[in-house]
Amino acid sequence: MKTVNVRLPGRGYPILIQAGSLDDAGRRVRRACAPDRLFIITDATVGSLYGDRLLDAFRRSGITASLHAVPAGENSKSWRILQDLYTRLIESGLTRDSCVAALGGGVVGDLAGFAAATYLRGIAWVQIPTTLLAQVDSSVGGKTGINHELGKNLIGSFHQPRLVLMDPSVLTTLEKREYWAGMSEVVKYGLIRSEPFFAWLESKWEGLGDPANAGLIEQMVTVCCRIKADVVRRDEKESGLRRILNFGHTLGHALESATEYGLFRHGEAVLHGMRFAAWLSMKREHLKPDAYQRIDDLLKRFPAPPVPNGLDGATLYEHMRTDKKRTGQGLRFILLKGIGKAFTEIPDHPARHLEEWLTNAR
Amino acid sequence: MKTVNVRLPGRGYPILIQAGSLDDAGRRVRRACAPDRLFIITDATVGSLYGDRLLDAFRRSGITASLHAVPAGENSKSWRILQDLYTRLIESGLTRDSCVAALGGGVVGDLAGFAAATYLRGIAWVQIPTTLLAQVDSSVGGKTGINHELGKNLIGSFHQPRLVLMDPSVLTTLEKREYWAGMSEVVKYGLIRSEPFFAWLESKWEGLGDPANAGLIEQMVTVCCRIKADVVRRDEKESGLRRILNFGHTLGHALESATEYGLFRHGEAVLHGMRFAAWLSMKREHLKPDAYQRIDDLLKRFPAPPVPNGLDGATLYEHMRTDKKRTGQGLRFILLKGIGKAFTEIPDHPARHLEEWLTNAR
Repeated sequence: MKTVNVRLPGRGYPILIQAGSLDDAGRRVRRACAPDRLFIITDATVGSLYGDRLLDAFRRSGITASLHAVPAGENSKSWRILQDLYTRLIESGLTRDSCVAALGGGVVGDLAGFAAATYLRGIAWVQIPTTLLAQVDSSVGGKTGINHELGKNLIGSFHQPRLVLMDPSVLTTLEKREYWAGMSEVVKYGLIRSEPFFAWLESKWEGLGDPANAGLIEQMVTVCCRIKADVVRRDEKESGLRRILNFGHTLGHALESATEYGLFRHGEAVLHGMRFAAWLSMKREHLKPDAYQRIDDLLKRFPAPPVPNGLDGATLYEHMRTDKKRTGQGLRFILLKGIGKAFTEIPDHPARHLEEWLTNAR
Repeated sequence: MKTVNVRLPGRGYPILIQAGSLDDAGRRVRRACAPDRLFIITDATVGSLYGDRLLDAFRRSGITASLHAVPAGENSKSWRILQDLYTRLIESGLTRDSCVAALGGGVVGDLAGFAAATYLRGIAWVQIPTTLLAQVDSSVGGKTGINHELGKNLIGSFHQPRLVLMDPSVLTTLEKREYWAGMSEVVKYGLIRSEPFFAWLESKWEGLGDPANAGLIEQMVTVCCRIKADVVRRDEKESGLRRILNFGHTLGHALESATEYGLFRHGEAVLHGMRFAAWLSMKREHLKPDAYQRIDDLLKRFPAPPVPNGLDGATLYEHMRTDKKRTGQGLRFILLKGIGKAFTEIPDHPARHLEEWLTNAR
């Protein structure tokens, strides 16, 4: 078992990473928050695979637990589903001493975390992420929330879980495409923060492609969580350093919204975003050409839909601007000074650079 | 001008109390959070009295401000109104560097605070409470939230404002009944925490009945905020000491819900709750009869509807139990060992005591 301690002022929490740990959830949760009652929120897909096993694990530890599955998919991050959840939490008799468990990917984590953050002004919750993306990304940082009809993730709050329990063996039932979408966020951590980790990924690439290699995957997930935990600890509310976690996301978000969230998985869009960001870093002479090549070589090995030919730089640029206006941050890019060395910059002529990249390098 | 500093780990804020301070809001808010844009949330009643004046105050300080008034009354603490608010915040271009100002009583404060707590995972807000109850109660502690159809205040979060600005002169336009409902919470602070303050209230009672006595009111509000700030600082998330702030609320809430929120203002229900709690304290031999008499003499001077004859102890007891089940706290009462000395106890036979009080002492 590997442990990453997320240290935050006054309320840190542990991330426990071990194949098979799902069956140990009762004991772990009892130790983390000793709830009088527990409510599992999951989605239909994950619920049918692991719901009963998790309920069993809690009951074996004497924790009164019930489970509710929302429909799988992004549409569950909605008002309607959230309201329905509140009703179920109330009707199940959840008190301030109870606990919510989120069993699933990013959507379930965001939704369940936000329900826990706002039910009775905030109750305890634990996260049991079942996708690679959720394990390496949304399990650290305490971001929770739902979508608004005018934009994604506009409603939410920061609410740290009491415990994150990761069982990498659940990744074996994950769709291949979903797994690879998560891998692009894995590579991101190497790019922004650790050259040795990037080199390790290069050297283990074949093995990492198969989630059945539990030992390797455990190691990989642990490093990602460690890097993210370190960044978040230094900047909990996302005012400075934490922005580097958005490496590849400026163009990534634009690609997602320009294709109406229908073509790319989030990780796939970020993959293209990272390729562009690396390219832009080289063009602006922050990154040496050989480092750029090393990055692009690895990123090109990913299976992912290409950027559609119909999408031009001007269109994507407009999407980037709209997205950023909302956060009041200006069109800031995360660039690289080297592998493992990210920084932020507001570059001149981003639209022109984008057009050039689309023509020459995508 | 009087100042009360609410000290909390990492993020305290000042409460500024001065007649006429409404016109100084721009300068004060600029100093507290320097927003790129500000959005005033108020209700129709308060908005028509003070909305333009406040907008002016912000504009004079160069703060881009807009205002939205929700309907007056408890029904505005709803999903529907909240969703509409989010849409307006988004459409007004509020960013993470913007600020929400709550101008109004408890309903507006709870609603606007919760919108600020959950918009873009939490943005700054300032509170400008315009009722006596909101000034002495909801302005300290950071409680925000809305109602669920299955119960009041079930959805919400803790979100501390950056600044609370109180202008006691706005109380002159408050309905008399509303003013007295607030006064019962004022007396509560003396009862639970300060005999000298209770004695001061007794001695100034005539003057305190007229909100035009700005100096007296300023002093009174300041002491209340100081007491509440001290209690909250010692117990931010309401796990222990803070419960004493619920003095009179166990029966108070039951009276409100048993009469379907139609007969009593919150403060009026709490008034009866405090009379019962004082009586119970005496019956259980914690409080001396002469102290009880002194308390009851002051509380009987309040104008308030009496407890209806049709309400019996058993009915009220059921309402108390339902209310408490939700918080998982058991039927705990806040009692007095003396004036200014509150503690909590789970008494035997509360229903019987209640019946006796209803028969003999209400």
